[in-house]
Amino acid sequence: MTSEKERGPASGIDHAASGTPFPVFNVGLLGHGTVGAAFAELLPARAPQVEAITGLRPELSGVLTRSRGDFDDILERSQLIVELIGGLEPARDYVLRAMRAKRHVVTANKQLLSQHGEELWATAREHNVQLRFEAAVAGVVPVIRVLQESLAGAHVERLHGIVNGTTNFILTEMARTGMTYAKALAEAQRLGYAEADPSEDVDGRDAAAKMAILARLAFDTPVSLDQVRYEGIEHIAPDDLEYARDLGLGLKLIGTAERIDGGLSVRVHPAFLYGDHPLASVGGPFNAVTVESPAITEITMSGPGAGGPQTASAVLGDVISAMIPPASTPPTSGELEIVADIVSSFYLHLEVADRPGVLAAVAHVLGEHDVSVKSVVQKGLGESARLVMVMHPVLESKFFDALDRIAELDFMRAKPRAIRVIEEEFH
Amino acid sequence: MTSEKERGPASGIDHAASGTPFPVFNVGLLGHGTVGAAFAELLPARAPQVEAITGLRPELSGVLTRSRGDFDDILERSQLIVELIGGLEPARDYVLRAMRAKRHVVTANKQLLSQHGEELWATAREHNVQLRFEAAVAGVVPVIRVLQESLAGAHVERLHGIVNGTTNFILTEMARTGMTYAKALAEAQRLGYAEADPSEDVDGRDAAAKMAILARLAFDTPVSLDQVRYEGIEHIAPDDLEYARDLGLGLKLIGTAERIDGGLSVRVHPAFLYGDHPLASVGGPFNAVTVESPAITEITMSGPGAGGPQTASAVLGDVISAMIPPASTPPTSGELEIVADIVSSFYLHLEVADRPGVLAAVAHVLGEHDVSVKSVVQKGLGESARLVMVMHPVLESKFFDALDRIAELDFMRAKPRAIRVIEEEFH
Repeated sequence: MTSEKERGPASGIDHAASGTPFPVFNVGLLGHGTVGAAFAELLPARAPQVEAITGLRPELSGVLTRSRGDFDDILERSQLIVELIGGLEPARDYVLRAMRAKRHVVTANKQLLSQHGEELWATAREHNVQLRFEAAVAGVVPVIRVLQESLAGAHVERLHGIVNGTTNFILTEMARTGMTYAKALAEAQRLGYAEADPSEDVDGRDAAAKMAILARLAFDTPVSLDQVRYEGIEHIAPDDLEYARDLGLGLKLIGTAERIDGGLSVRVHPAFLYGDHPLASVGGPFNAVTVESPAITEITMSGPGAGGPQTASAVLGDVISAMIPPASTPPTSGELEIVADIVSSFYLHLEVADRPGVLAAVAHVLGEHDVSVKSVVQKGLGESARLVMVMHPVLESKFFDALDRIAELDFMRAKPRAIRVIEEEFH
Repeated sequence: MTSEKERGPASGIDHAASGTPFPVFNVGLLGHGTVGAAFAELLPARAPQVEAITGLRPELSGVLTRSRGDFDDILERSQLIVELIGGLEPARDYVLRAMRAKRHVVTANKQLLSQHGEELWATAREHNVQLRFEAAVAGVVPVIRVLQESLAGAHVERLHGIVNGTTNFILTEMARTGMTYAKALAEAQRLGYAEADPSEDVDGRDAAAKMAILARLAFDTPVSLDQVRYEGIEHIAPDDLEYARDLGLGLKLIGTAERIDGGLSVRVHPAFLYGDHPLASVGGPFNAVTVESPAITEITMSGPGAGGPQTASAVLGDVISAMIPPASTPPTSGELEIVADIVSSFYLHLEVADRPGVLAAVAHVLGEHDVSVKSVVQKGLGESARLVMVMHPVLESKFFDALDRIAELDFMRAKPRAIRVIEEEFH
């Protein structure tokens, strides 16, 4: 603990450089709602991995809730403060005081950043501490880090985002089922994707706050919430979605920030996308952001926009980054065995003689090898026929054994063709 | 230049902490092919922005090509070396010597990292320098940074990637046009998406090298190229794509790394995806990676996988990161004007009396306001009809003026409904 590089409690980041062990890194947590509780659970669970990466063991030094804990006491005992209270005050006061006391801060507070961002960022620079806020926009989608770091040198031209999961869930449900806005909102509330008072989400204001933050970072210009035009989804009718589908269009609540004639437009409104737009396939409560720039063409990032464990995971990524200097690739800490035989789904294309019993014979061989068929398409083709099937997941060695047997059947007219099928689990 | 924090040419990273100005940050460039030439052009073009972020002016201190430049001389004059030679030697020797001389290194060399990664990462740790390699996998898609930083604390369960643009372009063309593999390959070569000798791309080996690097980072286990099973796309027949489409499937060359029974499987093979998979819509030469973890559910990143300017942009992001400590949000350097009136495409839904001349009257009003119609769907509905149109892009104020006029027409049966349409430019 006597390294000349040490600069007080906030300077654990010099650990790797100094070679001096800092056994514990103290994290103070403000707020214990859905995300706060998930973070308090995640931190000890991932502590061994964090220790392997950083050489420091992260520990919760205290938790401030409405009914217990003292901010000054927690601040005193922490090297980093995680702010998950939300809202403007007292969150703003706590964050400012933490940074002035040379503590790093990680926050998920979009209201605070979209309304007092410049003050907070200036304070972080002045006191040479980190202020990280990945979880404030698009949950675990790493758009803040990518804008601030990967694209720091890029000239961004435009940014489109689906940054509100509640409205994306509602629009996805309306499109999928034809239900009205009111009914889809009720469904979202039932499933926990919408609050009892959903107004900030459905009127576009939540998305506007997030777009203000993204625009500030992407365009190097101060943007506050009151400069963002926004419109919500309350007026969307089911038949708009239906007619639009005929035109190849799907509806999303889209936040846009783009350069226009030397200025900047930042806005949120419902918008149709053609099916080939990278945001068109973002369904349910997922969020996504597309960044366009002449040098990079376009990159898109997507993932869950909310949820306790997901948001807590984004917070943890920020905490780890604040603990270490950038871009050291640590030695591997464990060795996994490399596995050869795995479970896959398969597409199988068979060219066979067009005669009775063929499908039964193929199905028999598959069954003997525990391969079960999910769907079949059969097409006649003169004297032969084509059987195209998709299998349920099966151990690859068993499938290939079955395939060898099928190849030997007397009605086969060509070598069987098998291609793996990957199923999406989350959409 | 006399800060006590200064630790030789490689230590510009302490600049922000010390407050001492370092006017120039010298970058030595090895290699002047497509990416090298693009980087040599990009660095001076973006120097003012980099200076605003880092307080340091990046300058090319030297360029090593086959015919000119001396490595030792460039090394001596550089704080960071960008290695874009490719291949194993002399790239490995140069990178090791640079790090031993306490210079940061940025490289795009997937062969080198997938075959000698552990040696290189250990050397970087030993000499306390940064080794960054975002451009080695998936071009400008920021998957390396996200795995190493955002997801440093996540327990990754599985990773799927489209990490070879040549094969993705070929498969996209085959699916789109029904052409054979050979013809699609020739088309890719004509357009510059495939090399004259495409074997490393089409046989899956290039993707395998990238998957080895991703698996190493995601699963904290040493993985080298020779441990990755791979299979290419040379045997894919057009009718596989056609039949599969009937089953709702699209074909991609997919790299997978996943935990299986306490071990790790890393492999590359053609695989079908259902349309709702986040990688299904990744077309042409684009790359994309999906990371699955219980805590984060799933995040997907996509963008151009190759191209001189795109890859150079990823290299520049790494260079900037090596120049600064993490996560300072710099003060904004310019103020863009916030723009209100913009150009948009619109969907317009009109409920009208079903009588002659209605469409003509609507079209007349639109034309008077310079609004031009791209597509129309008309549906009868008893005594009224619905006109649903999509417009070409138009200044919003003009469109809304037209809309006000249309709302007053005597055949209108309901308030017109207008929703913006966003068109995808890059797919």
